[in-house]
Amino acid sequence: MKKITLLEAKSLLLKNDNFHILTHRYPDGDTIGCAFALCYALRDMGKKANVIINGKLPTKFSYLAENYADQNFLEQYVVSVDVADVKLLGEYKEEYENRIDLCLDHHASNCVEAENVLVDSSCAAACEIIHELIKAMGVEITKDIANALYTGVSTDTGCFCYSNTTASTHRIAAELMESGCEFYKINRINFETKTRAKLKMERMVYDTMEFYCSGKCAIIYTTIAMQNALNAGDDEMEGLASIPRQIEGVKIGITMREKEDGTFKVSVRTNDGINACEFCSRFGGGGHVAASGCSIKGDLQSVKYMLIKAAEEVL
Amino acid sequence: MKKITLLEAKSLLLKNDNFHILTHRYPDGDTIGCAFALCYALRDMGKKANVIINGKLPTKFSYLAENYADQNFLEQYVVSVDVADVKLLGEYKEEYENRIDLCLDHHASNCVEAENVLVDSSCAAACEIIHELIKAMGVEITKDIANALYTGVSTDTGCFCYSNTTASTHRIAAELMESGCEFYKINRINFETKTRAKLKMERMVYDTMEFYCSGKCAIIYTTIAMQNALNAGDDEMEGLASIPRQIEGVKIGITMREKEDGTFKVSVRTNDGINACEFCSRFGGGGHVAASGCSIKGDLQSVKYMLIKAAEEVL
Repeated sequence: MKKITLLEAKSLLLKNDNFHILTHRYPDGDTIGCAFALCYALRDMGKKANVIINGKLPTKFSYLAENYADQNFLEQYVVSVDVADVKLLGEYKEEYENRIDLCLDHHASNCVEAENVLVDSSCAAACEIIHELIKAMGVEITKDIANALYTGVSTDTGCFCYSNTTASTHRIAAELMESGCEFYKINRINFETKTRAKLKMERMVYDTMEFYCSGKCAIIYTTIAMQNALNAGDDEMEGLASIPRQIEGVKIGITMREKEDGTFKVSVRTNDGINACEFCSRFGGGGHVAASGCSIKGDLQSVKYMLIKAAEEVL
Repeated sequence: MKKITLLEAKSLLLKNDNFHILTHRYPDGDTIGCAFALCYALRDMGKKANVIINGKLPTKFSYLAENYADQNFLEQYVVSVDVADVKLLGEYKEEYENRIDLCLDHHASNCVEAENVLVDSSCAAACEIIHELIKAMGVEITKDIANALYTGVSTDTGCFCYSNTTASTHRIAAELMESGCEFYKINRINFETKTRAKLKMERMVYDTMEFYCSGKCAIIYTTIAMQNALNAGDDEMEGLASIPRQIEGVKIGITMREKEDGTFKVSVRTNDGINACEFCSRFGGGGHVAASGCSIKGDLQSVKYMLIKAAEEVL
């Protein structure tokens, strides 16, 4: 495992070919945006590259794949983007965990044992790193690349709202807009559009909201039964994690989502410097200081109890 | 009435003193941000200036006035900021409508008959104009000024989400962050914090939502009775206007708010290039292409019927 610089990463990308670009499970806008932006850039240089989507491409991101089709080649170089831990490779873990040539990420908690690792936790989104890399490689930022990078930068910062946003994030957004990214189409899809089913799901979730630690901790949950009742897919579930932290006085906002495998996918959002990554690491998870996640096995009440107890200890 | 350039506006501000800075009624982040930023800048130059707040300063914006106190002087020069129409001077209309020396605004629909008028409708927020002016005057962007300008830029663009956002908007945000603006504190207040009362109000409003024009028009309303039931003030009411447009397929989102004077304050938000300003001008209102407003006298049902009929004609 070798920590490398941006210029070293650039040289590795320039001198290699036939890329597989790995994304993390439950793919979000940043990992997907990184993968398509890098893939399009490599292809624009005449190289062969494919995006390995971890699970299904969320339909909301389908605009990123409009000009994408898998290529036929023998994979020679494996790059992971926005993947903090090989566990997050999910179904691809066994196949790739010991074969990652280059790991590009922005998670301070990154622990991927790749051949080469470039982690810049000062970046709000991993797409900021990919943006620098593509510019360093001398590839023109096309509209497709700009759309992919803007998707990652905007979704990982809650549209430039979260504390991780930097002046550099805004300058990158400005450049991407000048490169023709369809920022408003993308913002509407990611921040402004609710299906009626999602609206129903939100209202159902509000009914589950409970407050603990004298209002400093808010917790909501969704069950498979609730999802079935509304016939809600991932699109309807997405974004719910931001709800509890929004309530005035809440320092730890917890969202529990029941999964088919008997676990709960837990999302934790924090305010006022409370460390969400530390909180989730108690349960084998991780992520960012203000936004992290973990998976816990158990039934609704027992998992909820574990989380509330942890919140009481932290607060 | 003379249309002037930014440099001419700069000279007027430099050579005059004892300023009254007028804001529009139902003051929002842009008019308030413009007024405090300009006021602080003029004071930093040793001039006397006061902000004339139109109504009550929304408590959420109190952070902008932390270092502000009215000064004692005889007003000599009147500047209006983000005021598109003297009607919007509300209680100050009679006193000032014929005495505005300089009108600074970004509304294409601006019709203020001031001595000098600078309107730049390419700016997402009037604060972008104030930012250029303050830099042109050679005044340092202090933290207070940066906070005020960031408040206007971020609130008028829905935190850089709306279609009016430009590359220049992002670059200004980057500069303001480097000038020390407390962007996350401001974003949390304006975009991420809901009081429990506001949460209750939102849920009550969702119950009023109706769809017309085969789902292309969504309309919600609040009544004084609803406000009283939740003891909801302006802070709870604010932001409701963005709800109906968020629903998938909605091209015209209408929010009706019953006022004590027997009128409804109507907010119209549009998608897909439908002109909200044109829509509201039918009722004597105006604003921006995608976000406008008007006031209509009448009871709930008749006002709602007028609006739906107008929507049917437009769609």
